[in-house]
Amino acid sequence: MASSSNYTKALTYENMNAKVRNVQYAVRGELAIKAEDLKAKLQQGDTSLAFKQIVNCNIGNPQQLQQKPITFFRQVLALIEYPDLLSEENLPLAQKLFPADVIQRAQDINQSLGGAVGAYSHSQGIRAIREHVAQFIAARDGYPSDPDSIYLTTGASGGVQQILQMLIANSQVGVMIPIPQYPLYTASLALYDGRPVPYYLDESNDWGMDTNELQQSLQKARDQGVDVRALVIINPGNPTGQCLTKENMMEVVEFCYQNQLMLLADEVYQTNTYFPQQLPFHSFKKILSSARPEVRDQVELVSFHSISKGVVGECGRRGGYFECVNLDPRVMEQVYKMASVALCPNVSGQILVDLMVKPPQEGDISYPLYQQEAQGIYESLKRRSQRLHEAFNSMENVSCNPAQGAMYLFPSVKLPTKAIIAAEAAGKKPDDFYCLRMLDATGVCVIPGSGFGQKDNTYHFRSTFLPPEQLFDDFIAKLQAFHSEFMDTYR
Amino acid sequence: MASSSNYTKALTYENMNAKVRNVQYAVRGELAIKAEDLKAKLQQGDTSLAFKQIVNCNIGNPQQLQQKPITFFRQVLALIEYPDLLSEENLPLAQKLFPADVIQRAQDINQSLGGAVGAYSHSQGIRAIREHVAQFIAARDGYPSDPDSIYLTTGASGGVQQILQMLIANSQVGVMIPIPQYPLYTASLALYDGRPVPYYLDESNDWGMDTNELQQSLQKARDQGVDVRALVIINPGNPTGQCLTKENMMEVVEFCYQNQLMLLADEVYQTNTYFPQQLPFHSFKKILSSARPEVRDQVELVSFHSISKGVVGECGRRGGYFECVNLDPRVMEQVYKMASVALCPNVSGQILVDLMVKPPQEGDISYPLYQQEAQGIYESLKRRSQRLHEAFNSMENVSCNPAQGAMYLFPSVKLPTKAIIAAEAAGKKPDDFYCLRMLDATGVCVIPGSGFGQKDNTYHFRSTFLPPEQLFDDFIAKLQAFHSEFMDTYR
Repeated sequence: MASSSNYTKALTYENMNAKVRNVQYAVRGELAIKAEDLKAKLQQGDTSLAFKQIVNCNIGNPQQLQQKPITFFRQVLALIEYPDLLSEENLPLAQKLFPADVIQRAQDINQSLGGAVGAYSHSQGIRAIREHVAQFIAARDGYPSDPDSIYLTTGASGGVQQILQMLIANSQVGVMIPIPQYPLYTASLALYDGRPVPYYLDESNDWGMDTNELQQSLQKARDQGVDVRALVIINPGNPTGQCLTKENMMEVVEFCYQNQLMLLADEVYQTNTYFPQQLPFHSFKKILSSARPEVRDQVELVSFHSISKGVVGECGRRGGYFECVNLDPRVMEQVYKMASVALCPNVSGQILVDLMVKPPQEGDISYPLYQQEAQGIYESLKRRSQRLHEAFNSMENVSCNPAQGAMYLFPSVKLPTKAIIAAEAAGKKPDDFYCLRMLDATGVCVIPGSGFGQKDNTYHFRSTFLPPEQLFDDFIAKLQAFHSEFMDTYR
Repeated sequence: MASSSNYTKALTYENMNAKVRNVQYAVRGELAIKAEDLKAKLQQGDTSLAFKQIVNCNIGNPQQLQQKPITFFRQVLALIEYPDLLSEENLPLAQKLFPADVIQRAQDINQSLGGAVGAYSHSQGIRAIREHVAQFIAARDGYPSDPDSIYLTTGASGGVQQILQMLIANSQVGVMIPIPQYPLYTASLALYDGRPVPYYLDESNDWGMDTNELQQSLQKARDQGVDVRALVIINPGNPTGQCLTKENMMEVVEFCYQNQLMLLADEVYQTNTYFPQQLPFHSFKKILSSARPEVRDQVELVSFHSISKGVVGECGRRGGYFECVNLDPRVMEQVYKMASVALCPNVSGQILVDLMVKPPQEGDISYPLYQQEAQGIYESLKRRSQRLHEAFNSMENVSCNPAQGAMYLFPSVKLPTKAIIAAEAAGKKPDDFYCLRMLDATGVCVIPGSGFGQKDNTYHFRSTFLPPEQLFDDFIAKLQAFHSEFMDTYR
């Protein structure tokens, strides 16, 4: 049809917002999309594939891999969803299904909601929940926290993007990010047209962070005219799992003070620490609060937490919070305004934040089961991290630091030259090529290191250690078999 | 401390992203913030105020004002939150609390989730739910719908912002918006640095839309070098409530075709139509599907829907969807990528979308109660809209079009010169001044017309008609008393 072919669309790949076009997000990129396609094939009964199921190790998504949610949390949520369960008529039956402390907690939360989980809440998040978050922070750190400085968010991601969007006034504004990093940061910097200012973690030292490296990276960027305004630290690290020491963190806080940088502390893995004696979690809020007065009272800190990780694992609920310290009050007004345009974070997610920061306590009816579930998930994560770590290190040309924390391993693979040539011939980066071959051979979906950043001519991938423990032998055996065969082919 | 006072913050009101600073959002602006403060005072036992409660008519938030949620929806959600209710042990008790069709539906949804409401879902939204949305659209319109063209979203707002962000490639890109409009549009255009291209709705003709006005507005903007790429239509209108006729809508679709504009159809109030015989809701998808082939096959349409409005009213859950028609496939890939950076819309909100588009059907056990509740809410909204409409028109110097749809009235108030002078003396816009006085006198929070846009030297405000029906006499009496007194003071 002639007239149709003359029609120019209003929105095309060519004329769209280039900043959107420039965003890259590997965690759900080519590998993940291919894994989805293969999953659909399996569901349609395709038997031509080398595996019977897709194992999604591309994303920290515990309940996708059969982690059972915490019973107490879900019992409370069920009662809040359907408050008629607590009507006079239904209460006797409900009492047989729900422990008394669950019922009490649901009633308390309902009261703080004004009874309406279906209503928009305060844009900053429900006041009573922010008070519980502040109490949790104060108990964790030993320093006070102010509910007015806390914002409930749509996962941690939503909060990170809100703050970065405010910081990036123009395309000269830079934000220091670790390499390797969780690609939310590079994606958001691309979207808001800011400059990533990379600092490298030291693979040879358990992915440790060196403040000399911070200093050099900052200096180089400022020498190039970049207006560096903030430093992102992911602790425990993602994808690298490192846990910072107190001393290292105090250096960071001093570094921010000396260089007038806002510190963005991504602390979503704070309960995922697997060497709690040697490397316990410390929050940047605590370290900053214990710094000398001029530092403590000046350095701007935003710290992020989430219900998606830890032993909670409620990713799909999109809940989280951030706490602001020392921010300009007029900036805080702007934070509020932007939260209000989005109306409010979803209320179920807010309630899960409440449950995470205020779980059953010793003496409560639900405590033994809660404790057993939380401890069970934690111990299992620790065992799985160690098993996968050993398995990677047993493979030819693979070396892998232990996961001090978080949910991932980030092994390095020395790819043979023949593999690199084959990748080039296939039009792929070498690490992409390796991971695609792994997916085809095993159904296991991991993410190439290039999605997180890595030094030139090194190749890594990120894998979660979340497959169910009873399937771990099989999972590891498959990875090992694939890797041997890959090496045999290209050695 | 000398060293402290020399410290310059990394992020200040002055150096922050000016685009964020420029955002205005009146629905939760000065009036709403003041109402929150007054609410806190009341809760603290302050008896000095002229009222005993705050009535939030600033935002369409039915459950905040005691609208009871649909029982079937909440029963299903409770079972999904806590699937152990359906374990062998608990099932006999659960069957006494939940009808069989609720149990069946929860099991069906659980299966489509892979059992895990706490897992990240597909970034586009759960496939089975998108299929149900497509079936709903097809049944509503009589034209097919493709689940792959549907994205589940964080309310409608999240979807609107995703699309606008892609469209606005630079500060010359313009988007046509109605005046008065829902301020999400001006807020988002400010944030993404696009140009609002206003077209005026005709107050003297029940806030009707005239395509001549569209044509003139477009011409004027293009003459000024604005690269106008899209047209926003809110139907039924917000804040104005008008419902478009089929004929008018077809003109709009032709206008988009002639001028190569993407049509963004905000249809969140599609079930809130109060003259269904004379002015039934038609979707733009249906009108476009019935257009001549070259129009039907070319005009790019994105239409938005939500679980927050209608008779569902689940605002706090942040669920919604958009459907894309005729979008460039490479643009669709970018839509997917951006959805994936946000990981997924919250799964509870997705499930509510499923329940909204696939409610109980005639013959189901839960149908009579569902029907009674849905019809009850609808009839009550209609009665309340009429009562408030009559009340406004009975007031001196106030004239108000009826709400053909949506949840708001947008009366015009001819303010006396003395009131305008008093407002000026107080440093307020006249309509802000009027609404602040109303809040102080009655506890009723409405939003000044300037937050939505209005013709120069006219003054309006937006009020929802959502206060509970049993309180409506009192609500109206208070408004009338305030208005009389205001007029007596300033006449």
